[in-house]
Amino acid sequence: MFGCLVAGRLVQAAPQQVAEDKFVFDLPDYENINHVVVFMLGTIPFPEGMGGSVYFCYPDQSGMAVWQLLGFVTNEKPSAIFKISGLKSGKGSQHPFGAMNLPQTPTVAQIGISVELLENLAQQTPVASAAVSSVDSFTEFFLCGSGLALQHVPFFYSAC
Amino acid sequence: MFGCLVAGRLVQAAPQQVAEDKFVFDLPDYENINHVVVFMLGTIPFPEGMGGSVYFCYPDQSGMAVWQLLGFVTNEKPSAIFKISGLKSGKGSQHPFGAMNLPQTPTVAQIGISVELLENLAQQTPVASAAVSSVDSFTEFFLCGSGLALQHVPFFYSAC
Repeated sequence: MFGCLVAGRLVQAAPQQVAEDKFVFDLPDYENINHVVVFMLGTIPFPEGMGGSVYFCYPDQSGMAVWQLLGFVTNEKPSAIFKISGLKSGKGSQHPFGAMNLPQTPTVAQIGISVELLENLAQQTPVASAAVSSVDSFTEFFLCGSGLALQHVPFFYSAC
Repeated sequence: MFGCLVAGRLVQAAPQQVAEDKFVFDLPDYENINHVVVFMLGTIPFPEGMGGSVYFCYPDQSGMAVWQLLGFVTNEKPSAIFKISGLKSGKGSQHPFGAMNLPQTPTVAQIGISVELLENLAQQTPVASAAVSSVDSFTEFFLCGSGLALQHVPFFYSAC
C-alpha cells in the first residue's frame, strides 16, 4: 500500500505491518538522510474517510524512541516529501505507536504510517521544519481533504 | 526500470520508452509542480559502466520543447529529488532527445531519462537550481560513482 524512498537510495515498497492500521519502514544510517518521500503505491486506496499520518522515529541518546509527526498522505494527496535532517534534535510528540516497542538500534530510524480518520488527522500538527515543497502543500491538503476542517492553518510553509 | 513521482501526486512506474536507451514520463499540469522524484525501481540495474541523465522538458511560449539537465541516477545513487519550480524561465541546454519530436502540449512537461556511459554523465553540468538535498548529494555521487571523474565540482548545493 505504501512506498518509502530516501533520496539517493533504493525505493522501499514493503513496510513492516506492526498493527492492522500501522506500517513501519526502517531507515538505516538515518543521520545521513536529508529527505524522505512517502507515497501510496496506487494499488490500494485508503478506506473512505481515512488517511495516513506519517511519523519519523529515531532513538535519542538513551536509546528511547522519539516520534515526530511529519505530515499526511491521503487518497487526494498520495505522496509527500519530508525533510528530516533538521529534526534529530527536536522534541518528541504524541503518537499512536506507543505500545509497539519497536527495537531501537542507534543508527536506524523509522518512518511510521498510521491509518486514521481524516478528522483525526486534521487535529494534528506536524513539525513545521519537515515540510518540503511550498505553501501549496497546505492548500492542496486543505482543498482536497474531503471535508477536512483543519484547525492549525500554518502547518506548512516553504522550507526552501 | 524507472519510477517518477511528483510530490503530492500518485507515483508513475511506466515511462514511455521512446528509444532503446531513452524513457519519458509526462508531467501534466506542470506549472503546479514544485518537486519531482526520479528513481530506479530496483528490478533492473543499469548495465555496468552506465547511468542515467535526467532531463526536464517543457514547452516554451511558442510550443517548442526546452530541455534542462536536472541531474543523474546511477546504480550507486538510484534516486534523486529535483526542484523544477524555478526552471520554467531558464534556458535550454544540450540534450540527447533531439530527434524524438515529443508532442508538446501547453500544460504538459516531461521528465526524460537517457541511459549513457558514466564518463559521459561526468561531462554534463546540471542546472544548479534543480538540486535538492544538500552538498552531500554531490559528495555521494562523486564518492559512489564508480570511477566518475567529475569535472564541474559545484554541481549541487543546498537549495533549502
